[in-house]
Amino acid sequence: MSNPDADVHPVATGPAAELVAQHQEPQDIVFYCGWFCPYAARTWLALEEKGIPYQYKEENPFHKDKEFLKINPKGLVPAIVYKGRALYESLVICEFLEDAFPSTPPLLPKDPFERAHARLWIDYVCKSVIPPFQRLVQMQEPDKQRVELEATINAMRTLAEKIKGPWFLGEQFSLVDIVLVPWVIRDHVIAQYRGYSREAVGAGWKEYAERLAKRESVVKTQSFEEHNTKIYRRYLRDEAQSGLAKAIRAGLPYM
Amino acid sequence: MSNPDADVHPVATGPAAELVAQHQEPQDIVFYCGWFCPYAARTWLALEEKGIPYQYKEENPFHKDKEFLKINPKGLVPAIVYKGRALYESLVICEFLEDAFPSTPPLLPKDPFERAHARLWIDYVCKSVIPPFQRLVQMQEPDKQRVELEATINAMRTLAEKIKGPWFLGEQFSLVDIVLVPWVIRDHVIAQYRGYSREAVGAGWKEYAERLAKRESVVKTQSFEEHNTKIYRRYLRDEAQSGLAKAIRAGLPYM
Repeated sequence: MSNPDADVHPVATGPAAELVAQHQEPQDIVFYCGWFCPYAARTWLALEEKGIPYQYKEENPFHKDKEFLKINPKGLVPAIVYKGRALYESLVICEFLEDAFPSTPPLLPKDPFERAHARLWIDYVCKSVIPPFQRLVQMQEPDKQRVELEATINAMRTLAEKIKGPWFLGEQFSLVDIVLVPWVIRDHVIAQYRGYSREAVGAGWKEYAERLAKRESVVKTQSFEEHNTKIYRRYLRDEAQSGLAKAIRAGLPYM
Repeated sequence: MSNPDADVHPVATGPAAELVAQHQEPQDIVFYCGWFCPYAARTWLALEEKGIPYQYKEENPFHKDKEFLKINPKGLVPAIVYKGRALYESLVICEFLEDAFPSTPPLLPKDPFERAHARLWIDYVCKSVIPPFQRLVQMQEPDKQRVELEATINAMRTLAEKIKGPWFLGEQFSLVDIVLVPWVIRDHVIAQYRGYSREAVGAGWKEYAERLAKRESVVKTQSFEEHNTKIYRRYLRDEAQSGLAKAIRAGLPYM
């Protein structure tokens, strides 16, 4: 079956290509990633932040490769195989890395309440920031775009007002930042085509966004923007056929 | 503002009323619950399974009480106040109870991979079982009902095939069972009105469902069915005005 989305640039480029080249040796963790995928980016950033060895494998989730479906029946990235056993779902993998590698830099606070507080804001990003952002990209009618633009900016402002600085939870760069950053560094799409601006969010959002974009792990996992832009063009015309794009279109849940 | 949903029976009845009466003394955890809410049930079951002391407070989430909005800005149950600090979102609270009370019976495996595996199936229940179940209840057109009935049964079958027995993960009663059981014990609604049957799922689902319904914590947290039925009647006519009902209707994400 022909799927025009499958025609993404086949490999990471730019800084990400260098990083990929450094992670080709077999390791306990085999990391199945799509260089362009904002969900896979969560796992990639967590691996980098924690300094956990991994073998990078590029997987085009649009091809639904039969071998890969044995690893993740949904055929989606990210997925990992750890000592021969498969895991998927970006947040499940990130929590696994946190549990399985306790001597690496933590991405969640140790204190149970603070940890829960972090998970609450991760949940907020997933339920209240990403959905309107993604609908804003895909919606074609100006009226609906206005509603989603306002929802996106309001949700970001709620977050912005909670930033302790320099990172969301304070000194500790955490999973809250990681879950958010793939959308923050793609916000030029809604800035260019949907009237969004970081300034409109206020409450230090612009400065926080700029700080996130300069984080070493974020810089290292970036590909050349031109290839990303090509992908986003299909979303902006609401032609994309990814699981996320279809869910948005059909009004079905996703995360 | 008048909201006909707010007209739910004001308090727990039956076995749940007894349990509530036993949990009126002040404790470190104040648990804000709606006796009828399948999400609040997760937290209630986790508290009961772990034997953690709690003070039960009935909260009608349709009233959006101003004091309660300070605890959960979404105005939803479950919420807890732990030593004066608020938490909400059912899964966040359950994970908090697991982290904060390590000497109580665990609801997740200790092994990091097994733990991740459990979270993967919790995620599956949230994304693949509950949404079609809930759409099946609310959908009015027979064609759409057929689609959702099939999706519900298929998702349950995928789960059923993974049951190790007697509980989902084996000997350990876990958060996977807890997240699932509020929908399992409400499946008589789709059985009576939407053509569902536990037998149609197969793979031991019926036996597992019956086992879940007899679990002590589940029995103790139940109210008289007649009051639940009254609530479900509004969902079945797609008249309910809860956040969940509205999200389903609008095709917006929820969990």
